[in-house]
Amino acid sequence: MNALLDVRALVFDVFGSVVDWRGSIQRDLTAWGVANGKNVDWEAFARDWRSHYQPNLEEVRSGRRPFALLDTLHREALNVLLPKYGIDDLTEAQKDHINQVWHRLDGWPDSVPGLLRLKARFTIAPLSNGNVSLLNNMAKYAALPWDLNLSTQWFNAYKPKPETYLGAVKALGLKPEQVMMCAAHNDDLKAARNVGLKTAFWARPTEYGVDQIRDTHPTESWDIIAKDIRDLADQLMG
Amino acid sequence: MNALLDVRALVFDVFGSVVDWRGSIQRDLTAWGVANGKNVDWEAFARDWRSHYQPNLEEVRSGRRPFALLDTLHREALNVLLPKYGIDDLTEAQKDHINQVWHRLDGWPDSVPGLLRLKARFTIAPLSNGNVSLLNNMAKYAALPWDLNLSTQWFNAYKPKPETYLGAVKALGLKPEQVMMCAAHNDDLKAARNVGLKTAFWARPTEYGVDQIRDTHPTESWDIIAKDIRDLADQLMG
Repeated sequence: MNALLDVRALVFDVFGSVVDWRGSIQRDLTAWGVANGKNVDWEAFARDWRSHYQPNLEEVRSGRRPFALLDTLHREALNVLLPKYGIDDLTEAQKDHINQVWHRLDGWPDSVPGLLRLKARFTIAPLSNGNVSLLNNMAKYAALPWDLNLSTQWFNAYKPKPETYLGAVKALGLKPEQVMMCAAHNDDLKAARNVGLKTAFWARPTEYGVDQIRDTHPTESWDIIAKDIRDLADQLMG
Repeated sequence: MNALLDVRALVFDVFGSVVDWRGSIQRDLTAWGVANGKNVDWEAFARDWRSHYQPNLEEVRSGRRPFALLDTLHREALNVLLPKYGIDDLTEAQKDHINQVWHRLDGWPDSVPGLLRLKARFTIAPLSNGNVSLLNNMAKYAALPWDLNLSTQWFNAYKPKPETYLGAVKALGLKPEQVMMCAAHNDDLKAARNVGLKTAFWARPTEYGVDQIRDTHPTESWDIIAKDIRDLADQLMG
């Protein structure tokens, strides 16, 4: 742990790592569907929606399209999903409400207690592809006690582009080795380690539900391997 | 107040409005001076230091020099002050410690209690010319419970340039009239109102001490005129 004594800031992947997007969307839209007479398998809908995430981000990362907010990418994917699930007859206000469900995600049970402890010693921030307003609304909704909002929107880029990690380091006024990327996704940590950040991993083996085919275990010797965010606090703070 | 019902976010000027830079620097550096055998009138030193603020910002705003962090501008001014106050014999580490005093400023007594109440209903953020790390370190130091950090560093510009206010509005995903600029400085509010933000004023008549020649009263009919941040919460939240 001695190499970690210089760590001053912990930056977190959010979707899947801190918040349970699949379960939250299922709960939120099931209630909405009951109230609005829309009978859909919202759990499958959530997984399907998320499956558009990396391909749509890649359009931006590759340079094939200019930077667009994640809210916009979510809405484009939603427009594909609605006819597929037989609910193409929604009003614009209803579509907006559904698209905003990504702003209304709940933390995993350990997230808020773990983050509150870590905040006493470290700067904590989301380093997420969610746009600034999405992450802010989510933080208010789920009581995520971030010190600041390091959306990759500030860098006009999406993880795992190196400028997102290095942009966060620079904004914090720190060196890469003073910042720890914390995530339940090995690829995110690999990209962060490649540019000098410290790394912490925990698994979220139910993130994707039946589709989960990866990230059930660490694939490298990350600086910290924890059970969850509460355990990360235990390991960093004793 | 009806026109204010749409306000979703309150963005705050920080130096002078939320934190007492003059008193904080005086207290911090007086203690440091006693410990290090440097007998200086630190209150005059603080006022002198701050007097470089607007001229140095204007170099950037005018385009005569590229954007530079406030930490850098503070350090340049410090280098001018040290010989003037007869303490040019400091180590680099000592100079760094003194320059970082701007990261160690205390809130006015009403700031934390007022902000904590406002945070329950609104998004609250600093919209300050302090750089991201300065504002973050200050928030940790003074327990300022910001939701996110809207340093003008994100916009590579300094207030009162319109792109700083509009950049904050855009990042928040809101319309200008949904954001209220909150400050003890009439000029800041005037610039914010010019681009459509709502405005709230309170006076900090002891901000500058003997040098105070302005901002003892509101100069326009701002949307809210409060006694301090606690009173702002009273007026907005009843």
